[in-house]
Amino acid sequence: MRRESEKKAVVLLSGGIDSATCLAYARSKGYECHALSFDYGQRHRIELKCAKKIARRFQAIEHLVVRLDLRKWGGSALTSGKIKVPKDGLKPGIPATYVPARNMVFLSVACAFAEARGINEIFIGVNSLDYSGYPDCRPQFVRSFERTANLGTKAGIEKGKIRIRAPLQQMEKWQIVKLALSLGVEIAETSSCYDPAPDGSPCGRCDSCEIRKEALRKAVPQR
Amino acid sequence: MRRESEKKAVVLLSGGIDSATCLAYARSKGYECHALSFDYGQRHRIELKCAKKIARRFQAIEHLVVRLDLRKWGGSALTSGKIKVPKDGLKPGIPATYVPARNMVFLSVACAFAEARGINEIFIGVNSLDYSGYPDCRPQFVRSFERTANLGTKAGIEKGKIRIRAPLQQMEKWQIVKLALSLGVEIAETSSCYDPAPDGSPCGRCDSCEIRKEALRKAVPQR
Repeated sequence: MRRESEKKAVVLLSGGIDSATCLAYARSKGYECHALSFDYGQRHRIELKCAKKIARRFQAIEHLVVRLDLRKWGGSALTSGKIKVPKDGLKPGIPATYVPARNMVFLSVACAFAEARGINEIFIGVNSLDYSGYPDCRPQFVRSFERTANLGTKAGIEKGKIRIRAPLQQMEKWQIVKLALSLGVEIAETSSCYDPAPDGSPCGRCDSCEIRKEALRKAVPQR
Repeated sequence: MRRESEKKAVVLLSGGIDSATCLAYARSKGYECHALSFDYGQRHRIELKCAKKIARRFQAIEHLVVRLDLRKWGGSALTSGKIKVPKDGLKPGIPATYVPARNMVFLSVACAFAEARGINEIFIGVNSLDYSGYPDCRPQFVRSFERTANLGTKAGIEKGKIRIRAPLQQMEKWQIVKLALSLGVEIAETSSCYDPAPDGSPCGRCDSCEIRKEALRKAVPQR
């Protein structure tokens, strides 16, 4: 069996509850964690400040912030000034906050980073229950990405074992909050809002704020 | 049948012979082409100047250059000062010029760009015969990537038809050169060298230079 200290992972860290929980979870399982965030022109850049604090709290070995301007082409309420963040409740279908191919881009860059570091495991905090509107949060996407990564990389060919870990995949948001609290995540240190004020305070009305509030109510009933 | 003018594609354009041929081919098939290049910290940045000329020659509707610093982690002779470009002939196995997960990253970003533009087809100039050492040039990778893209994007879910086109996949390099010449590619306007001099002139001894010279000899015997 591998010694705990030999377990290494790249963890995608946005600065929200999910990715913070994912990092905390990987740490609790004994992984040495290399955190990766993206400065992609997102409306909610405050999350990068959060990511920095979270990486420090959970002793990431390193925390890389990669610049990649997805605002060049927009196509999402999070990366274009022309599309508004919806604030009238969750609707069926893929929401306007979907960012074209975002998780595929993030996972691909994570694979590049992991491969260069000799790391075979990548953690991503996707969950498909609350966010069923996002195609790139679904298990069938994650599994297919893993297969592709093992076909298109040296690590995959020579070792055949790039693993995409999505430990929150089947959890509901309130269960994630419970797990987060049990692992020492400071909820106040995370940011979920899609449309925060310039000082970083949440709007309280976007889908992500609504889901977060509801999850906190359910996970911590005494609040 | 779709009118010619309605056919649109994103074309990955590095500035080498293959991607130039790919763009010329897509244009010859009546596609409106949106060219995409990457400034990724490559040793051979001269290729970006070539890409610009090629995009203009083949009347790309637009030519985006995306910055994404793969030198942050290196791991390749093309993105790290610590690894030398091999100049002692082609060897079996994956060469030191393999850039971790590069084509997966490029294709993912191309998908994001295409989706935001409402485009469903992406052209990439990979070929697997001469460059069999690169895992991300193989047909099984390209097919798997296409499946993944259709699972992880709104375009894929709602329209189910993101297509990754690799028209050079089964061609030998000399055949690509012949096709390039027949389509009006100016070979001198392309750059293939992995380790060019500061003025952009090719080293003449890296794998890519060797393959190019051999292909030119075979394609244009009178030279």
